Amino acid sequence: MNINGTSTRTIRPLPDNYGVEIIDQTLLPHRLEFRTLRSLEDAAEAISVMRVRGAPLIGATAAYGVALALSEDSSEGRLELACERLMATRPTAVNLRWALERMQNRLTPLPAAQRCEVAWSEAAAVCDEDVMLNQSIGRHGAGLIKQVYEKTSRTVNVMTHCNAGWLATVDWGTALAPVYTAFDAGIPVHVWVSETRPRNQGAALTAWELAQHGVPHTVIADNAAGHIMQHGLVDLVIVGADRAAANGDIANKIGTYLKALAARDNGVPFYAAVPGPTIDWRLNDGSGIPIEERAADEVTHIQGQMENGSVTSVRLTPSQSDAANPAFDVTPARLVTGIITERGVCPATREGLSRLYPEAGTSSRRTA
Amino acid sequence: MNINGTSTRTIRPLPDNYGVEIIDQTLLPHRLEFRTLRSLEDAAEAISVMRVRGAPLIGATAAYGVALALSEDSSEGRLELACERLMATRPTAVNLRWALERMQNRLTPLPAAQRCEVAWSEAAAVCDEDVMLNQSIGRHGAGLIKQVYEKTSRTVNVMTHCNAGWLATVDWGTALAPVYTAFDAGIPVHVWVSETRPRNQGAALTAWELAQHGVPHTVIADNAAGHIMQHGLVDLVIVGADRAAANGDIANKIGTYLKALAARDNGVPFYAAVPGPTIDWRLNDGSGIPIEERAADEVTHIQGQMENGSVTSVRLTPSQSDAANPAFDVTPARLVTGIITERGVCPATREGLSRLYPEAGTSSRRTA
Repeated sequence: MNINGTSTRTIRPLPDNYGVEIIDQTLLPHRLEFRTLRSLEDAAEAISVMRVRGAPLIGATAAYGVALALSEDSSEGRLELACERLMATRPTAVNLRWALERMQNRLTPLPAAQRCEVAWSEAAAVCDEDVMLNQSIGRHGAGLIKQVYEKTSRTVNVMTHCNAGWLATVDWGTALAPVYTAFDAGIPVHVWVSETRPRNQGAALTAWELAQHGVPHTVIADNAAGHIMQHGLVDLVIVGADRAAANGDIANKIGTYLKALAARDNGVPFYAAVPGPTIDWRLNDGSGIPIEERAADEVTHIQGQMENGSVTSVRLTPSQSDAANPAFDVTPARLVTGIITERGVCPATREGLSRLYPEAGTSSRRTA
Repeated sequence: MNINGTSTRTIRPLPDNYGVEIIDQTLLPHRLEFRTLRSLEDAAEAISVMRVRGAPLIGATAAYGVALALSEDSSEGRLELACERLMATRPTAVNLRWALERMQNRLTPLPAAQRCEVAWSEAAAVCDEDVMLNQSIGRHGAGLIKQVYEKTSRTVNVMTHCNAGWLATVDWGTALAPVYTAFDAGIPVHVWVSETRPRNQGAALTAWELAQHGVPHTVIADNAAGHIMQHGLVDLVIVGADRAAANGDIANKIGTYLKALAARDNGVPFYAAVPGPTIDWRLNDGSGIPIEERAADEVTHIQGQMENGSVTSVRLTPSQSDAANPAFDVTPARLVTGIITERGVCPATREGLSRLYPEAGTSSRRTA
């Protein structure tokens, strides 16, 4: 992805590994500010308060969090503690567990003296692989957009939810990778960006990164998604996922389920873009996915920019009113037209996923 | 409804008819401020910028708008101009047309000298009738809540959307009248209040009036409605309507359709509370209902209260991003379990409605 024309990743190690640079996503779209994580605690805080978010980027940040922890103390105890601390930051995105298990499996057998260096290179490998997975998702998903274009010869309208773009990953994005790939190939594409209350990752992040890349887009209230589909203005929906169960059930940002229902009711294809590390083969279906309950003040308050340019939080509700804030919902596989993975597009079924990931199908049966 | 314990209507004529007092709903929930409309233009502006909103209250305000216009000049030309001006304020709520046609039919045949006085009394009659209709909707709808309570012996969870409460009417509300009636009868009830972006009438108005009445409630992001239903936390959904077609299709605040889809998918009964004047017998189905497109800045910006107590508008989106803002959607009758009218609860079908309104069924056939 380009920021002001310069190719940039959302996370990168600083020279001599003294820290890791991220974009503080809590300040977008109003301010682009980079921030340096210098310790395990910095990494854990960045994930918890959502300076970084999006399942793949959470995984990448956790991997670097382990590297930062081992830079201070590379003992096995420290490695375990670091993984525990990071694991506790957010419950729903399975990439967090995936990245931490990968780091632990790679690092535990090593002598302490080697762990730190290998941790940094393993975290870098997690990031490089994420980029490759997403490029591949982009190619497969762009094929779906191209099919619509070849049939209609007009701008293809894609609807997405939340941010599963470049900012949710190391580069390219998951749900938006097909959009960027199609756009770069000259296919005219327009994106309906649902704002994604309560944290507005659509209005704040997806709109911002699409604007940076020059992709035409329109922000809508989440409530408008059904109406827009009823009026034939959406060719396909592509969303990301925080965790997919082995049967194709998809946990994603709260509100995804409502879009899937509207897509089904209006005959609009509904795809989830899911890289391998986001599939939880240990879960037979979505009922076992832990759903994060976040603080009520994300609903009662919202952050925005005043006319004088300063960013502030304002209260939306009466002070006597309580609020509930489930951060994710589960879209049942029956509503998902297909899953776009780095290995191709498959039906949202156990069989569909197992055919693409035969090696994982076995471990699933073992632990189910 | 009580405000700070005092029984209050949302609109009332001032002594000697020199003006009409409303609550400026654009300032809630942060500030309760009454405002005096002194002219036709004041009334039209109040409807346009949504100082008053909600189909029944729009109708009532329009009726008083005619009275204010005739207080200056009671000629037939002035009457026609006033109705035209008011009719142009907002397109979707059919109560506006209903109230203006009623005023015109009543006033046109009169000698000019009588028109002004009759206009004030007719507007008062529109208001009094609205209160009676809503009380009746309250009784019929409370029966549905009571049925759930008798079956479960626990708090009944009602979900609503937008504000179809006291503030949307002259008193009592439509969708919330059953809630208040059940609550006042001692049935334990809890309301899920969806915030209703972009203008947040749920978070701002419904939460505020439920708090004033002491009804337990919880605000959620609109996106959370499906998840809450998936987890069995909703016994029934009750929404209002800006216009119902003769076949039971319901135009209501944008996002209503998504809630209806989620209700259907989870076996949750979905009711629309619709007083007679909100039924448009001239429309065979919802496809002919005009859907208001409002300004993009209702999506790109939001109003809230800063810590210092002042109310401000903040920008949510990047300045380069466009936004679309359809204000209503149409929920097809097939998703509506029943319509709660002042004459009882009926199926959302032409037959169901015609049985309750036999006199209108004929006019419908005539003009369909």
